[in-house]
Amino acid sequence: MAKPANPKGTRDFGPREMARRNYIFQTIRKYFSLYGYNPIETPAMELTDTLLGKYGEEGDRLIFRILNSGDYLKGAEGLSGDAASTALTNHISEKALRYDLTVPFARFVVQHQHTLNLPFKRSQIQPVWRADRPQKGRYREFYQCDADVVGSQSLVYEVELITLFNQVLSDLGIPAFAIKLNNRKVLAGIAEVIGEPSKIVDITVAIDKLDKVGLDGVNKELAEKGVAALAIEKLQPLIHFEGDFSSKLAFLQSFLTGSEVGLKGVEELRQVLEWVGDVEPKLVDEKADRRLELDLTLARGLNYYTGAIFEVKALGVQIGSICGGGRYDDLTGIFGLPGVSGVGISFGADRIYDVLEELNLFPAELNQSVSVLVVHFGEEEARFGAKLVYQLRKSGISAELYPDQAKIKKQMAYAANRSVPFVAIIGESELKSGTAVLKNMTSGEQLPLSFTEIIEHLSR
Amino acid sequence: MAKPANPKGTRDFGPREMARRNYIFQTIRKYFSLYGYNPIETPAMELTDTLLGKYGEEGDRLIFRILNSGDYLKGAEGLSGDAASTALTNHISEKALRYDLTVPFARFVVQHQHTLNLPFKRSQIQPVWRADRPQKGRYREFYQCDADVVGSQSLVYEVELITLFNQVLSDLGIPAFAIKLNNRKVLAGIAEVIGEPSKIVDITVAIDKLDKVGLDGVNKELAEKGVAALAIEKLQPLIHFEGDFSSKLAFLQSFLTGSEVGLKGVEELRQVLEWVGDVEPKLVDEKADRRLELDLTLARGLNYYTGAIFEVKALGVQIGSICGGGRYDDLTGIFGLPGVSGVGISFGADRIYDVLEELNLFPAELNQSVSVLVVHFGEEEARFGAKLVYQLRKSGISAELYPDQAKIKKQMAYAANRSVPFVAIIGESELKSGTAVLKNMTSGEQLPLSFTEIIEHLSR
Repeated sequence: MAKPANPKGTRDFGPREMARRNYIFQTIRKYFSLYGYNPIETPAMELTDTLLGKYGEEGDRLIFRILNSGDYLKGAEGLSGDAASTALTNHISEKALRYDLTVPFARFVVQHQHTLNLPFKRSQIQPVWRADRPQKGRYREFYQCDADVVGSQSLVYEVELITLFNQVLSDLGIPAFAIKLNNRKVLAGIAEVIGEPSKIVDITVAIDKLDKVGLDGVNKELAEKGVAALAIEKLQPLIHFEGDFSSKLAFLQSFLTGSEVGLKGVEELRQVLEWVGDVEPKLVDEKADRRLELDLTLARGLNYYTGAIFEVKALGVQIGSICGGGRYDDLTGIFGLPGVSGVGISFGADRIYDVLEELNLFPAELNQSVSVLVVHFGEEEARFGAKLVYQLRKSGISAELYPDQAKIKKQMAYAANRSVPFVAIIGESELKSGTAVLKNMTSGEQLPLSFTEIIEHLSR
Repeated sequence: MAKPANPKGTRDFGPREMARRNYIFQTIRKYFSLYGYNPIETPAMELTDTLLGKYGEEGDRLIFRILNSGDYLKGAEGLSGDAASTALTNHISEKALRYDLTVPFARFVVQHQHTLNLPFKRSQIQPVWRADRPQKGRYREFYQCDADVVGSQSLVYEVELITLFNQVLSDLGIPAFAIKLNNRKVLAGIAEVIGEPSKIVDITVAIDKLDKVGLDGVNKELAEKGVAALAIEKLQPLIHFEGDFSSKLAFLQSFLTGSEVGLKGVEELRQVLEWVGDVEPKLVDEKADRRLELDLTLARGLNYYTGAIFEVKALGVQIGSICGGGRYDDLTGIFGLPGVSGVGISFGADRIYDVLEELNLFPAELNQSVSVLVVHFGEEEARFGAKLVYQLRKSGISAELYPDQAKIKKQMAYAANRSVPFVAIIGESELKSGTAVLKNMTSGEQLPLSFTEIIEHLSR
């Protein structure tokens, strides 16, 4: 028999990793709930039609398809078996694993539109699957943690999603992060006023490289992408400009004179900045460790975002963005329900995990399996110990009985291996006196206590 | 475009159902943790080799297979396209969706055996997929909630799994249930002493029908299954016997004289009964609403269970068993690691959901989306209200701002639709005085309060 293994690109999570992952998920869930983003779940599999054509050609290729059950080849005789042809594949596979949580959410909204109250807020924390080539940090199965609201254009949601980022990441103890904000309308305005409205993405991507390639490099790339010389010249003051959020807004206000869409974007940014400053003044101080920044080079999701664009970076850690999001004006149009504006964010749980690990921010108690292991010198002692275990559990203290008759040394080694902080020892004299010796595995302190006293001691 | 839909046999869960499902999962998780069954997760997909041949021929047919990505037909030219032939299927599909959590757990234990401390306790709450014909109460995707321990033969675990059933189901408020216990060794002993050792399953299944078909019916079925007349005669006192757990044990002790395995089974049942009685005396009172019963007709999993067999029925509800489990002496042998005994249980979350729904046992607060909706008479009021919302969230109270400028009537209707228990109303005078009117949506009571007072009021 071949050695048992999980499929490549997938992961088993043991108790230690699960405790850490759940710590992240539970923190995210707590704030999703405080903010009214109630959870939904959709099935792992969607009809192939729901998914195909939503993620571009590359995305379509990365979708895991499920073989029809039963006589799946029936009626396939005339179809080409050429791998390039999708006719056979579509015939033998009608379902596929979800590739993200956004398209299933759009499908959900359209399908259940008559029972939803708009604006509809939802959170969703579920795995997605992609047939990517596995490599470090890239998996074929990973969780996405999304919060979205659809059915309102109000900037109230941009504001609250920014504070949601801040509360979750602060609660996780991440000491320094930048919540980067951009606005698609401002980018459109910039492209418009320099006379290159079709080159938004190229311009944004080129400016993003300023730190790496210098001003000449940026201008060279712009020219290579076909941006006219005059347009590049007009762009120079913008590329040069440095300043905080407010000064950038003032600059843009003047730079974008004449672009209706651009000025609309500036107005949106200004309102978001002001409202965030109302509730969390420290966040709009760009010298703070945890801060909101205006980043005009943020090009994330430019193909579908129509307003705000978010990205969060952990500062002082070599890792890509840990969260992202933005506003899309037509999420559900692909399923025949046009005009439903939405805005949403996603927490990158795997990257947040890596940040917490690297900065040693996971609480120590996550390593514990149970709080108390009861060890014993014999069968009668074990039976007596079972009562202590049960009383502990009834009091909300996790506990276990060592199950077998074994030397105390072996039982203590089991406790140490499982990182149990307290061991309760029951020998002949404890059995007689109805007590146990409670040992603190960190300090080594040992106390002879009644069961009630043990529960009191551990409840403190 | 076709109307968007989820695949048949799968379900979308909206916020209301999710709140109820999570209430069940969280209750189960809480006790899994108190009992030291720490969570693990395995990937949705397993290598086909890991799954095939583990669930019988019928099971193999119900496994969802994943089409290889890329040029999956390459090299398949010589393979038969006959659906009955598995050669082509195995060539184009190397992975499949897990069918249950037990086989992946066995794979996990063998694969990670060198880093696990035995006995290893784990819980696992994840969906599984089966290509079953969808029908009422049977889905193609459903969650399993399992707790298992491997690496010990100690009956301590049988005892704690029974009390775990009891604590979870009691905490969920299920008023009456029977935890049915049987033992494969006792069944083997019975078959042995009547001279039909190979007919354990037939005998057990036949006796199980006593209530439905009467004594004659049972004896007829036994004869039809080829049980010898003498054996049927010997079986009569057992079929007739009625009594509580202890009297049944006394009867079996005498009936099974001469069967070593049978007497071993009786001894196991006796120890479990006694230890459960030690910690939860009410549970072994067979007149109690929540009780442990010895049920010799329990035939669940007789193909693989080797010791204890568990099944839990909710009393007074027309529904199958809501939990099950048992001991298996060789879980990991299929993956090349023989001799690892285990015992485990599974909570049927979907059936528990139906029981709680039918008996109206879900807590009312599960219907709430958020605790407070802040409504407002204009833009300035909304901006002021955003501060209240943020302060509420900081105090751990879930809250939302109505996002748009709309008539108060519309805003209140939104609150009612989302079952929000409190609304905070901010108009011109509240804006001036820095207060809000807190309205209790159930009682209709309205109180003009400062933000601090609102938080105090709601924290009570």
